[in-house]
Amino acid sequence: MVLPLAEHVDAVGLVDHHVHGYWLDVGDRRRFENGLNEANVEPLADFDSAFDTQIGFAIRAHCAPLLDLPPHADPDVYWARRSELGDAEVARRFLAAAGVTHWLVDTGFAAGAADPATLAAASGGQVGEIVRLESIAEEAARDEGDYADAFSRLLAERGATAAGTKSILAYRGGFVGDLSEPSPAEVRDAAARWRDAGGTRLTDRVLLRFGLHEALRLGKPLQFHTGFGDRDCDLHAANPIHLLEFLRRSGDTPITLLHCYPYEREAGYLAQAFNNVYLDGGLSINHLGARSTAFIGRLFELAPFRKILYSSDGFGPVELHYLGARLWRNGIREVTSSFVAAGEWSAADAVRVVDLVGHATARRIYRLD
Amino acid sequence: MVLPLAEHVDAVGLVDHHVHGYWLDVGDRRRFENGLNEANVEPLADFDSAFDTQIGFAIRAHCAPLLDLPPHADPDVYWARRSELGDAEVARRFLAAAGVTHWLVDTGFAAGAADPATLAAASGGQVGEIVRLESIAEEAARDEGDYADAFSRLLAERGATAAGTKSILAYRGGFVGDLSEPSPAEVRDAAARWRDAGGTRLTDRVLLRFGLHEALRLGKPLQFHTGFGDRDCDLHAANPIHLLEFLRRSGDTPITLLHCYPYEREAGYLAQAFNNVYLDGGLSINHLGARSTAFIGRLFELAPFRKILYSSDGFGPVELHYLGARLWRNGIREVTSSFVAAGEWSAADAVRVVDLVGHATARRIYRLD
Amino acid sequence: MVLPLAEHVDAVGLVDHHVHGYWLDVGDRRRFENGLNEANVEPLADFDSAFDTQIGFAIRAHCAPLLDLPPHADPDVYWARRSELGDAEVARRFLAAAGVTHWLVDTGFAAGAADPATLAAASGGQVGEIVRLESIAEEAARDEGDYADAFSRLLAERGATAAGTKSILAYRGGFVGDLSEPSPAEVRDAAARWRDAGGTRLTDRVLLRFGLHEALRLGKPLQFHTGFGDRDCDLHAANPIHLLEFLRRSGDTPITLLHCYPYEREAGYLAQAFNNVYLDGGLSINHLGARSTAFIGRLFELAPFRKILYSSDGFGPVELHYLGARLWRNGIREVTSSFVAAGEWSAADAVRVVDLVGHATARRIYRLD
Repeated sequence: MVLPLAEHVDAVGLVDHHVHGYWLDVGDRRRFENGLNEANVEPLADFDSAFDTQIGFAIRAHCAPLLDLPPHADPDVYWARRSELGDAEVARRFLAAAGVTHWLVDTGFAAGAADPATLAAASGGQVGEIVRLESIAEEAARDEGDYADAFSRLLAERGATAAGTKSILAYRGGFVGDLSEPSPAEVRDAAARWRDAGGTRLTDRVLLRFGLHEALRLGKPLQFHTGFGDRDCDLHAANPIHLLEFLRRSGDTPITLLHCYPYEREAGYLAQAFNNVYLDGGLSINHLGARSTAFIGRLFELAPFRKILYSSDGFGPVELHYLGARLWRNGIREVTSSFVAAGEWSAADAVRVVDLVGHATARRIYRLD
Repeated sequence: MVLPLAEHVDAVGLVDHHVHGYWLDVGDRRRFENGLNEANVEPLADFDSAFDTQIGFAIRAHCAPLLDLPPHADPDVYWARRSELGDAEVARRFLAAAGVTHWLVDTGFAAGAADPATLAAASGGQVGEIVRLESIAEEAARDEGDYADAFSRLLAERGATAAGTKSILAYRGGFVGDLSEPSPAEVRDAAARWRDAGGTRLTDRVLLRFGLHEALRLGKPLQFHTGFGDRDCDLHAANPIHLLEFLRRSGDTPITLLHCYPYEREAGYLAQAFNNVYLDGGLSINHLGARSTAFIGRLFELAPFRKILYSSDGFGPVELHYLGARLWRNGIREVTSSFVAAGEWSAADAVRVVDLVGHATARRIYRLD
Repeated sequence: MVLPLAEHVDAVGLVDHHVHGYWLDVGDRRRFENGLNEANVEPLADFDSAFDTQIGFAIRAHCAPLLDLPPHADPDVYWARRSELGDAEVARRFLAAAGVTHWLVDTGFAAGAADPATLAAASGGQVGEIVRLESIAEEAARDEGDYADAFSRLLAERGATAAGTKSILAYRGGFVGDLSEPSPAEVRDAAARWRDAGGTRLTDRVLLRFGLHEALRLGKPLQFHTGFGDRDCDLHAANPIHLLEFLRRSGDTPITLLHCYPYEREAGYLAQAFNNVYLDGGLSINHLGARSTAFIGRLFELAPFRKILYSSDGFGPVELHYLGARLWRNGIREVTSSFVAAGEWSAADAVRVVDLVGHATARRIYRLD
């Protein structure tokens, strides 16, 4: 019974519901290696190598064969072969091999990265857009009229064709504190202060809160970066449990908690507690490499199976767009197979859950069909 | 050597030291499914099903055979057979199969649920009562005399025959902040305010603190709901680590930390740090289903083996009174067998630890013999 | 391919980069058992035994054979044989069997414990000193001159030959709050207040902060107790994530996060986020016994492999100096072998990572060669 499950996991077409563009030109090896470290915001130290990490070992294990190298190829060999093939061919190989039918692209952080149309052409998949709320806010700040009106208009325009919205509140002060809707007067005053200060990089709590509640009204799925990210984000304040009071008043708009590490168990609790809350493992899966199976197991605790999603959060090295899918497939195969082997799940149920997580739930909430 | 361990685990008579009544009339399928979701306080969404969760899969794997169905029976088939047998027969089957010799029943939340005498008759086990401190408080609020006197008198009366007490402070503001004993004047003032406001649903911190210290003086084991519960409980504030200062001044009265997820490692630390602190996995085991073995493994970290207890926290669907025991047996068998297989534990020690956790420690602290 | 890895793990010479002296005279069995409980600060209750814990079972499994007993020997038999051999012979056996080439000894808590020279002689290994900042502070308080000058002079003197420094801020109020460098005037005022109050047991935040920044200037690795310790330490405030802001301004001085349980995943994040941050499992490994393999697996998540260290934190019973090494070897063998078996790592890489963690990184940052 296990063999069909393994085959199904390998074949299932995924919806990658949160991804970015890959670098069109990966640059030199130093830039590539820094692109494999998520948390550090400085260049890697000379004594270090991003290849000596779980994600580095995972690239050598799983990506090397797609470049016609043996698994675990030496980093020097890997880099030489990657350079020889060139960025376009490398991208073509990894994107096709990901087995992703839909990429929902966060377009908020895109300098030098493939835009959605390029990603669609190179991968053969369909693309949708995820609009970043803080980008809308910064555009509204540059508008001359009333800030709230400008934000609402821009969100309505961009949101009309977008699949969903995204908040990086985790990077702009975190989740601790009041997240209720501010009054129009508070928004007006805060916007005036922010515009006077230049209107760049939004950190004002009033305007951040305003944006969240506008997104709830839009009604399309609202994604939150939670947990693991770079060190500008205070990890502790990005624990999704601090969204509890916000979620209690969030209505029916689907809310997806991204990444979640090391708070994936709190996120699972929230997915059980609220009909409109979902979670994924996001970039944590890529960065955990050989340990991602253990992590994926923890995603299958309190969260109902119709509330779990797949994403790679791939950005920069195009390896990540493929590796996320490869590690997710390996992990969910191992996790669900172990449940089946223990007599806890039927194999048919396991196949059904793989479909729910891999694409069906994302298709439902993002209305992809 | 492993076979006798497995047989022993299946045969051992358990003390379920924290359980509630089961529903005498389970009602319709919607009510049954909502009874399988702990965290949500609203009806499940139409797109969802409580059968598509770990607890739902576990019911189909482990409960279906007791209704003469194959493991993993379809939810429709399961519900039809359950309805056909009727609530009384279903209860009889699950309660007998739990292998529980003593049920210690939290009687604080009991509308429509079996009372202890009914549970005893249906299961063939003995019952004891766990008195909820907040219920005593609400009764004392209805008394005409001095609140503190009334509370003390009621606690002495109810406590004389009870096995222990229970606090749901987790649901009444959580553990963060001062939990020291208030002065008599503070209690008098707070009680007057509460009575003036109607004396319903206690959330006053002074009176909650007063109740805890009265329970310490009673000296019988004091149970705390910690961690995972419904979303009215702020999960973060129910982390038992916030009880640290209270525990430092709690004397010799046994204190049992219930459920603990996802803070079971902090709870284990507290069980090592204080001679009077104990923990269990409680309702987390039922809700984690196929993942409960991994959770039970984490209960066996810092906590001394004479400080770990078993409970199901079964409430509502009578499946939970059985499933908690079934999953606990499976989990502790797998966890301890793996220690034995690795040469870390002897099989004889594993059998002894199963007895400690399954009944011996509960018998000691609740004086059941 | 796995056999050579297992053999390599058994043979590799370790740097135990954080350890204390062992008791020269272990005393009676009660003292020995209390020495196996880290968190409790009171005598163990009469109903309890430190042998009925993971560390107790691990001593019987792994230490008994070194005393010519079978694995899992009865505690009475173990204690009798230990007493028969005598403290000196027991120390000789355990220290030699640890396979440690360098012991870096925290000399801050040493009454009745072997000094570094005795440890060197009994083990055949080399020793280095880790200077405790709070001890320097207490010595400076006894000095007659300017406090800051005295602290700097003493740190320079002791630090000249020491391998690194250590902070027990976790036990002196924890990590929450401002950890920036205080002004000279603030230090002067705080020192005057502390000296007036007697100058014992430093808890003044200004002087604790001053010491940390002096240690950063010294430039030798700065060790932090984090996570699991005795209950005088508020576990929650010892979560290393609360060091985030301090680390952002810590420059190039290597900072090592010790023990980390149950916050090892946050610690791994910090090790990825900062070029100068390292972590180990420290005393958690001994106390987790059969569960230490699962814990060691979690150390290999976000932390780059060149940022993970080994220590036993052995103190008191000399078993701990050996058991830490034995459990680390077993754990890293199982963890890395499972990665190799799954095709995620090559066996050659696994051997290389064992060397990095076992000694190479410690040799680099402590300049041991």
